[in-house]
Amino acid sequence: MRIAQIAPLYESCPPQFYGGTERVVSYLTEEFVRLGHEVTLFASGDSRTSAVLEPGCKNALRFDSRCKDPLVYHLIMLDRVRRRAGDFDILHFHTDYLHFPLLADCWDKTLTTLHGRLDLPDLPAIMREFSMMPLVSISHAQRVPMAWANWYGTVLHGLPRDLYRVGNGDSGYLAFLGRISPEKAPDCAIEIARRAGVPLQIAAKVDQVDQAYFESTIAPLLQDPLLEFIGEIGEASKGAFLGDAMALLFPIAWPEPFGLVLIEAMANGTPVIAFGHGSVPEIIEDGITGFIVDDVEAAVAAVPLAKRLDRKTIRRRFEERFTAERMARDYLALYQQVLARASGPLGLGAEAAGRMAQDVAHDTD
Amino acid sequence: MRIAQIAPLYESCPPQFYGGTERVVSYLTEEFVRLGHEVTLFASGDSRTSAVLEPGCKNALRFDSRCKDPLVYHLIMLDRVRRRAGDFDILHFHTDYLHFPLLADCWDKTLTTLHGRLDLPDLPAIMREFSMMPLVSISHAQRVPMAWANWYGTVLHGLPRDLYRVGNGDSGYLAFLGRISPEKAPDCAIEIARRAGVPLQIAAKVDQVDQAYFESTIAPLLQDPLLEFIGEIGEASKGAFLGDAMALLFPIAWPEPFGLVLIEAMANGTPVIAFGHGSVPEIIEDGITGFIVDDVEAAVAAVPLAKRLDRKTIRRRFEERFTAERMARDYLALYQQVLARASGPLGLGAEAAGRMAQDVAHDTD
Repeated sequence: MRIAQIAPLYESCPPQFYGGTERVVSYLTEEFVRLGHEVTLFASGDSRTSAVLEPGCKNALRFDSRCKDPLVYHLIMLDRVRRRAGDFDILHFHTDYLHFPLLADCWDKTLTTLHGRLDLPDLPAIMREFSMMPLVSISHAQRVPMAWANWYGTVLHGLPRDLYRVGNGDSGYLAFLGRISPEKAPDCAIEIARRAGVPLQIAAKVDQVDQAYFESTIAPLLQDPLLEFIGEIGEASKGAFLGDAMALLFPIAWPEPFGLVLIEAMANGTPVIAFGHGSVPEIIEDGITGFIVDDVEAAVAAVPLAKRLDRKTIRRRFEERFTAERMARDYLALYQQVLARASGPLGLGAEAAGRMAQDVAHDTD
Repeated sequence: MRIAQIAPLYESCPPQFYGGTERVVSYLTEEFVRLGHEVTLFASGDSRTSAVLEPGCKNALRFDSRCKDPLVYHLIMLDRVRRRAGDFDILHFHTDYLHFPLLADCWDKTLTTLHGRLDLPDLPAIMREFSMMPLVSISHAQRVPMAWANWYGTVLHGLPRDLYRVGNGDSGYLAFLGRISPEKAPDCAIEIARRAGVPLQIAAKVDQVDQAYFESTIAPLLQDPLLEFIGEIGEASKGAFLGDAMALLFPIAWPEPFGLVLIEAMANGTPVIAFGHGSVPEIIEDGITGFIVDDVEAAVAAVPLAKRLDRKTIRRRFEERFTAERMARDYLALYQQVLARASGPLGLGAEAAGRMAQDVAHDTD
């Protein structure tokens, strides 16, 4: 298939540091190339890909101090995608709703993965207005605030199979990995570690907006010698950080739409002790790949149990459920579904139907 | 002509308080109706107009506490405009660049007035990408940072002729009207008034972003009994406020693209003492409708001179140069220019040319 992947421009694909959406787009793009598809990636110019790169801007916008208005570059890129729509069988967007008005007339060759939380007050208005746009959720839980939207499926994220290998988890610490922010509840992770009497290593970035929270709530807790704050870590350090950990703590306080770190831990054979909000019950298998708990007390009790889980089994469940290949095949099935619907009785007439039938034939070669 | 005016949704048309763009769109819309055109106004649902109102949202977004993401409603509105493009002879946008990708394919029936400053670092990229879009500046000075853009003309703003009447300016105070912000230099107005020994009335809103500036720089100055801070005033109070004033102080510290208050003062027969940045030399006639000065000292010296300017002459110059009717006729000439260019050798082929020729014929009925 001729596939276009359209990423946000805030981070490169893959990102240098944090950046879940661009990371997933990168994994998916590389996997499609590996599976033999013709892939074009619309992303920031400093992205690295084996697909054809169509740069939407020179550098990732988050690190470009001259960029005051990211909307400019996103609109330019989306317009270019629209003008080239005929070159592709499917256009797969990861740009929230921004492309909806531009691509509404060729909805029948688009798929949009919504990567963020969906309980924002203005989203229903635009989802209703562009109700023809085929949508994908990244967990079933993510859909709850907009269960009525035009969902074609849920595709759980995946990682390249060989990105990580099973670690032995024998460094004697618990891990926290992500952002320092109230909804990720690092204070709760600290409490769990202290009550369990086990060291906690915190690898996390602190966004500008969370600086005050870090200083008022987290920094004062870091005096404890059990705790080590190591700041934001790059992709290269993540495997060792997670693989050496006894368990990952994920005591989130919000409905996490996915939580990439959960499957990163699994890929390293590391069990997860998580609160059961959002996507967690769809990702963690209680008693197999970790423990889903209700409160700090249960989390503390789970620490010694987690140590006893079989790391090879956790890795195997990763390989069965969360590889980039599985993710790519799930998406291919949804692309077919979009194209089939377009050529069916709801489609846009003979010409479109003919074109789509061709597309489907092409894809099943 | 069948004219669509497309306003931003932040304020109603006209705005209840401050809001230059929506105010001008409202004046222009009402004037086109008065001149016998078929006008549709795309604006917030609480707008008041004698044109056909197409609401882009229920209430002006700035006052809607449930609105976190104004982009949603702008995209929905612009998409509806695009779908209805065939219903109009001309689409006149006041929404910055946001409609460019959506309307690029029918540039030949659009005109875009840029209302803001143009020295922002990301603007050139989008202006270059959509270089077909016909643009209007609101002063020649506004164009300087992007002189190369696709300008069709400059249209200075105008006010309804009967909105204000000449006041007698005998209340013995100088006036400052606008926003409290460093670029409007209220501190400088205060200094001018104090050194001239004349009372100053300050009618101004303080935006959230300027609250710290107000508290640190302006509030401490307000102890002086010569100064009176009366906060934001509504449209109904503006005539008396300006008409009673000896002169308006406009000591701006930035390249103001237009400065609606300048012509509001003129409509009340009130002279303006202004620093010569941005649009000021295109609006104020030195020695006739006010004085253009270089510094505080010259401004102080101009106060007694301004008192002696003939208020009836100032009002006459307003009627000659700055009525909404003159503004509307200027825009009509530019609409013709767009349509003529569209049907000319640069136009989009026979069908478009035919349609446009019809449009022009219709307009000159």
